[in-house]
Amino acid sequence: MDLGIRIEKALEIALTKAEGTDCPPRLASALRYSVFPAGHRIRPRLVLAVSEACGGRDPDAADAAAAAIEFLHCASLVHDDLPCFDDADERRGKPSVHKIFGEPLAVLAGDALIVLAFETLARGVLSDPVKLGGLIRLAGQAVGAPGGICAGQAWESEPEVSLSAYHRAKTASLFAGATAAGALASGAEPLQWRDLGERLGEAYQVADDIRDVAASPEEIGKPCGQDLALGRPNMARELGLEPAIGLLERMIVAAIAAVPACPGQAQLRAAILIETKRFLPAGLVRHAA
Amino acid sequence: MDLGIRIEKALEIALTKAEGTDCPPRLASALRYSVFPAGHRIRPRLVLAVSEACGGRDPDAADAAAAAIEFLHCASLVHDDLPCFDDADERRGKPSVHKIFGEPLAVLAGDALIVLAFETLARGVLSDPVKLGGLIRLAGQAVGAPGGICAGQAWESEPEVSLSAYHRAKTASLFAGATAAGALASGAEPLQWRDLGERLGEAYQVADDIRDVAASPEEIGKPCGQDLALGRPNMARELGLEPAIGLLERMIVAAIAAVPACPGQAQLRAAILIETKRFLPAGLVRHAA
Repeated sequence: MDLGIRIEKALEIALTKAEGTDCPPRLASALRYSVFPAGHRIRPRLVLAVSEACGGRDPDAADAAAAAIEFLHCASLVHDDLPCFDDADERRGKPSVHKIFGEPLAVLAGDALIVLAFETLARGVLSDPVKLGGLIRLAGQAVGAPGGICAGQAWESEPEVSLSAYHRAKTASLFAGATAAGALASGAEPLQWRDLGERLGEAYQVADDIRDVAASPEEIGKPCGQDLALGRPNMARELGLEPAIGLLERMIVAAIAAVPACPGQAQLRAAILIETKRFLPAGLVRHAA
Repeated sequence: MDLGIRIEKALEIALTKAEGTDCPPRLASALRYSVFPAGHRIRPRLVLAVSEACGGRDPDAADAAAAAIEFLHCASLVHDDLPCFDDADERRGKPSVHKIFGEPLAVLAGDALIVLAFETLARGVLSDPVKLGGLIRLAGQAVGAPGGICAGQAWESEPEVSLSAYHRAKTASLFAGATAAGALASGAEPLQWRDLGERLGEAYQVADDIRDVAASPEEIGKPCGQDLALGRPNMARELGLEPAIGLLERMIVAAIAAVPACPGQAQLRAAILIETKRFLPAGLVRHAA
């Protein structure tokens, strides 16, 4: 089955359980609005691609891990858009969750998506305690304290910021969780897969900086120029646009070279090359080329 | 070891991991401030008391479940106090988390505590996949959608509210999760333990209503009269104070009668009687007696 179809199906099954008959109707709507329609699904695609490259031996566990990683990503977007953080009116080309449902339901939808991520792992990994415990720890490490997304976002509240710790926690941690979880789902050693995820996450962060400076809101589905407006560091502003795009291309090449030995190494490298082309809008790539 | 000491130790060990050296210092402080010093720890005490009554066969799992339930409770308090919900300035006799650390860190501390709850389960339950998966599902059911704390809080954003669903989700669900998790940690069948937790949670909700109407802020460590100010239903206002206290006493007697058969049934009944005496401040009980 196509990876994209597997991901949407896994998300749909898990979300349907959360929406159960007793759920307050507006919370159920906010949850669905936070997850569908699809964004690029870059992180869950990475989970499944790595899992397949490692032999694809436990598709249920891989689907659960992919859905869990995407729920955690969606939760972070919903909370990041809140007025007390980025105060963003748009996301994925439509109004942000708090703009439609209000702040209380945006906070609660984010909370419930974090919970749903861990429930989804527990439902999908039934037979192997080492695998379930390991996937939960990888997901927790990717999003919690001390070094996950929450910590990354929290660096914005510190008087002194370590820029590398900020980007590692805010962006690279979930990519590293995605590659490690994909490997573990298929019974491979997860630790050696973190480096690939971290490299892809760092490249994604540079691409995000480039988009913020040079893309149009229509191309990326959210406002541009936010880093400048919010006083955040931005690599494309520091280096200039074309050098930043050059850096991004070198980072992607290095990431692809870092794919560990595995049965499907060549296919995975090809898949990552295709996937990373989505990091920038097509118009922007052509413009810079 | 005394249950209270076990709980504080389990919380301390788990929190220390979240505070690791890479953690943004203010987030680490906000996490610690959210969890310590101890509240009554009613829910984790219930986890351990039930686990001991069921034979106490896996103290590591029970400690992990107790800590997880308390982290989830603390997260719900931190988020409930936010300006977009109760806008509460005080909690547990000190300024609320967002008053000290600001809204962004209060949102992130709540998020990170939810994540930490599930990580703590994964670290404490190493050998039994059925137990780990079951505990995660119980915790998720207690706090997520469709019927956990997030859903309970979300009923406040609905135009029409089912009062019983609201109280069941907002308060009783975590008590039911606590009794069921305590049983499962010790290898007992969790389902038959939910009824006791639900009854105790419903009684606790009535006690909370009584405290809101009749206690002083010094006695309960948070502002009183909040239900009236926020337009929320309150049993003590509806029934009158003394009838509400009578109802609470009958509910506690019925809950104690609902303790399932288990090796430590008599001790558990005695422990619950002591525990439920903390539901109301001593002065309030004497005043009404």
